[in-house]
Amino acid sequence: MTEQLAVAVLGAGGRMGSEAVTAIESAPDLELVAALKRGDSLDELVSAGAQVVVDLTTPENTEANVRFAVEHGMHAVVGTTGWDEAKRASLAQLLEQHPGTGVLIAPNFALGSVLASSFAATAAKYFESVEIIELHHPDKVDAPSGTAIRTAQLVAAARDAADVPAGPDATTKALDGARGADVDGVRVHSVRLRGLVAHQEVLLGGPGEQLTIRHDSFDRASFMPGVLLGVRAVTGRPGLTYGLDGYLELS
Amino acid sequence: MTEQLAVAVLGAGGRMGSEAVTAIESAPDLELVAALKRGDSLDELVSAGAQVVVDLTTPENTEANVRFAVEHGMHAVVGTTGWDEAKRASLAQLLEQHPGTGVLIAPNFALGSVLASSFAATAAKYFESVEIIELHHPDKVDAPSGTAIRTAQLVAAARDAADVPAGPDATTKALDGARGADVDGVRVHSVRLRGLVAHQEVLLGGPGEQLTIRHDSFDRASFMPGVLLGVRAVTGRPGLTYGLDGYLELS
Amino acid sequence: MTEQLAVAVLGAGGRMGSEAVTAIESAPDLELVAALKRGDSLDELVSAGAQVVVDLTTPENTEANVRFAVEHGMHAVVGTTGWDEAKRASLAQLLEQHPGTGVLIAPNFALGSVLASSFAATAAKYFESVEIIELHHPDKVDAPSGTAIRTAQLVAAARDAADVPAGPDATTKALDGARGADVDGVRVHSVRLRGLVAHQEVLLGGPGEQLTIRHDSFDRASFMPGVLLGVRAVTGRPGLTYGLDGYLELS
Amino acid sequence: MTEQLAVAVLGAGGRMGSEAVTAIESAPDLELVAALKRGDSLDELVSAGAQVVVDLTTPENTEANVRFAVEHGMHAVVGTTGWDEAKRASLAQLLEQHPGTGVLIAPNFALGSVLASSFAATAAKYFESVEIIELHHPDKVDAPSGTAIRTAQLVAAARDAADVPAGPDATTKALDGARGADVDGVRVHSVRLRGLVAHQEVLLGGPGEQLTIRHDSFDRASFMPGVLLGVRAVTGRPGLTYGLDGYLELS
Repeated sequence: MTEQLAVAVLGAGGRMGSEAVTAIESAPDLELVAALKRGDSLDELVSAGAQVVVDLTTPENTEANVRFAVEHGMHAVVGTTGWDEAKRASLAQLLEQHPGTGVLIAPNFALGSVLASSFAATAAKYFESVEIIELHHPDKVDAPSGTAIRTAQLVAAARDAADVPAGPDATTKALDGARGADVDGVRVHSVRLRGLVAHQEVLLGGPGEQLTIRHDSFDRASFMPGVLLGVRAVTGRPGLTYGLDGYLELS
Repeated sequence: MTEQLAVAVLGAGGRMGSEAVTAIESAPDLELVAALKRGDSLDELVSAGAQVVVDLTTPENTEANVRFAVEHGMHAVVGTTGWDEAKRASLAQLLEQHPGTGVLIAPNFALGSVLASSFAATAAKYFESVEIIELHHPDKVDAPSGTAIRTAQLVAAARDAADVPAGPDATTKALDGARGADVDGVRVHSVRLRGLVAHQEVLLGGPGEQLTIRHDSFDRASFMPGVLLGVRAVTGRPGLTYGLDGYLELS
Repeated sequence: MTEQLAVAVLGAGGRMGSEAVTAIESAPDLELVAALKRGDSLDELVSAGAQVVVDLTTPENTEANVRFAVEHGMHAVVGTTGWDEAKRASLAQLLEQHPGTGVLIAPNFALGSVLASSFAATAAKYFESVEIIELHHPDKVDAPSGTAIRTAQLVAAARDAADVPAGPDATTKALDGARGADVDGVRVHSVRLRGLVAHQEVLLGGPGEQLTIRHDSFDRASFMPGVLLGVRAVTGRPGLTYGLDGYLELS
Repeated sequence: MTEQLAVAVLGAGGRMGSEAVTAIESAPDLELVAALKRGDSLDELVSAGAQVVVDLTTPENTEANVRFAVEHGMHAVVGTTGWDEAKRASLAQLLEQHPGTGVLIAPNFALGSVLASSFAATAAKYFESVEIIELHHPDKVDAPSGTAIRTAQLVAAARDAADVPAGPDATTKALDGARGADVDGVRVHSVRLRGLVAHQEVLLGGPGEQLTIRHDSFDRASFMPGVLLGVRAVTGRPGLTYGLDGYLELS
């Protein structure tokens, strides 16, 4: 019989954390050995014998949590935000002293969303036109969404690198805002509609054809397959990986 | 055997006109009795015995053409633009003197487009949120499209009449243009993409559900079923009708 | 100040019932005066002074509940299944003796879904081709969905009534099942996909154009606007109405 | 100044061929040196100094054409069907004797379609469910389309290789055909609708999310960017390449 991987969850009292607890308990190849909430001691990770730590806490705590894990020889899968370049550089240095240990920091664990962004960037240079439509519930305060901005930046960078000119646009007479926001030369349109959750469409057009890559996120459950994929893979990926796409086979 | 209806086309040398000639020739219940081009005399309509005249000419000529038809007891189906309110009022007066004669002036003959606008207006008051996305080829100079602006106006009027409040929108931090153009309080987004022709989506959202009404126009051929429907119906519709929706059964 | 309408919910312990309780409590023009669960006595409806009863119970109990309400001069809005023709006829007879009382029985309270079916039936005779795609979660046991079958029947009836011939189809060489199920001559395709809830697309095609009417149901919450609309309207609609579309303005 | 590449078109009298002639003439880096029609002698390729030959002829002639080109040191880009495994193997042998010469045989030159199939295969193993909907004009005789069958086979092979189980499906009560055709375990649904050209959607679903990859082909013009990409790249790709995806950077 295959041995189970011992996994601990930090932030188990939060919404993402409690979903992760359920997902790990349901996976036959994983064993949940600790589920820590705000105020619990990190020492429990050691006594529980965790091999992989899943950090779903807060920007204030995540750095200390992950450094503790690494220093105790545990791998980490991190969904908490707040890891700017400086913090990532410092963590990478620490990991050099722990050459067998791996950390995955992922701003987005939805497999479909990560794949959609990657495909959009790959396809971008083969089409004359690319635009992005993102659609969310009307309680969202920012427009465009962070994911749409990142996708637009990836698309723009791919087109620049391949010397693709800007998409054609003969508009000379427009109402304010009709043509969307300009993100590095890529037009992004933000729809806000009651009933929706989080959705994104990348539209790519060439002579006589269109390619559409759409991702719909209906539910927080969509993050769990990505978390589990990270937990299973991190033990074989020493060092720091930023972005779930680093763990995916993309062609 | 049923007698065929005698139909003449004005503007038969143009793109729409030549499509209409072909469509009428292919319809077993219609007989093409005249196909006039620029410079031909309107008297040919009389000598050919036309019962219905299809005007697909130019804004400069259409008024004289239609008045000639009405004065000679012929019905008319008109796809030419340029019929402002004053011209329509004057034509309506003329028609009062010819009580058996009918004229249909339609800014849009695509059945699907007319139905889509009508359905959107009907549904608009039952949903919290309504937004419009229109997508066209990148050689278009105006944004939003005229059809999208008219659809937004119909939607806004229907919501006003039913005292529906503005759609919810918590956006406080937005890139310029991200939330589209504001047409009477309805957000309209304009996509320009190589490969596309003319497309429109009306998105309606309420708690837990979305209704989407989309129309795709791939080809000028899409206008012909509406032209034929107009030709067949105009003989039984005395007076002036503005808009193809006046001839459709909408529920 | 406007008086509130006194509303009672039967089946308040069920999933739909508890949603209805919340929705009624949140509506400023409605007052929840009773929320009965399995085993509670219907006499509480009388003592609470309910004007409208919302029945969201079980096929075994709904008939007795509604008859009790009518006999006590209360209007009823019914979302429970099981009302075959015989039961509806018998209820209609009872309502003749209570001429001021109204009952709405609705197999489907999602406004968007009811509107989508109605629009599809209206549009069906104007297009050469109509097909339906319904998409649901993979735990559904029947295919096509009941809603898709009803929509196909409405579409087929509308086309028959207008003498529209069958949609064109040159297929001579097909894998088994590729062209979907045949429901009264309308092709219906059933997709089953993890992550989805309940979705339906009606595709209508003519020369050079396509009209698509899509409904997405993401959440049980989608039924509540329809329930509230029914509660508000039923007091002015004496007799039996079957189907929420009877309460909607559809053009 | 950069020298132009000398290109010849075989089958220039056909629909694809005449599109290719126009596309090559419009490309500043390419020079059209010959445009041969049925009955013209292949010797003209030599006298014209063609470096790359584009074969858009017929299954009966393509093999002789391509072998002639290779034997005369010209590269070839081939869009004609009929290249079964035996013919490809024989051509590969010939190419071994002409080590600097390249041939691209592509069953499909639409970049968007090739990318869509590739992305679908890449994503397939990360989702519980995958189904395919293809939509075409109603004059098509086969269902599903060849492209949809190939996409389903690629998807099925990718899932098999990763030991992904079959998609969940609780259907126990279905109308004949409702669940589509079964292609290597992947469900494929074929819609036939007047107004459409050639369209395909791959739907991938996991807990709480959906990824949709859609390709629309509106016009034969969609093949030309792929033909030009092939012409430009074939001179640097000795030997036989089967499938345009071999020339694309797919991640």
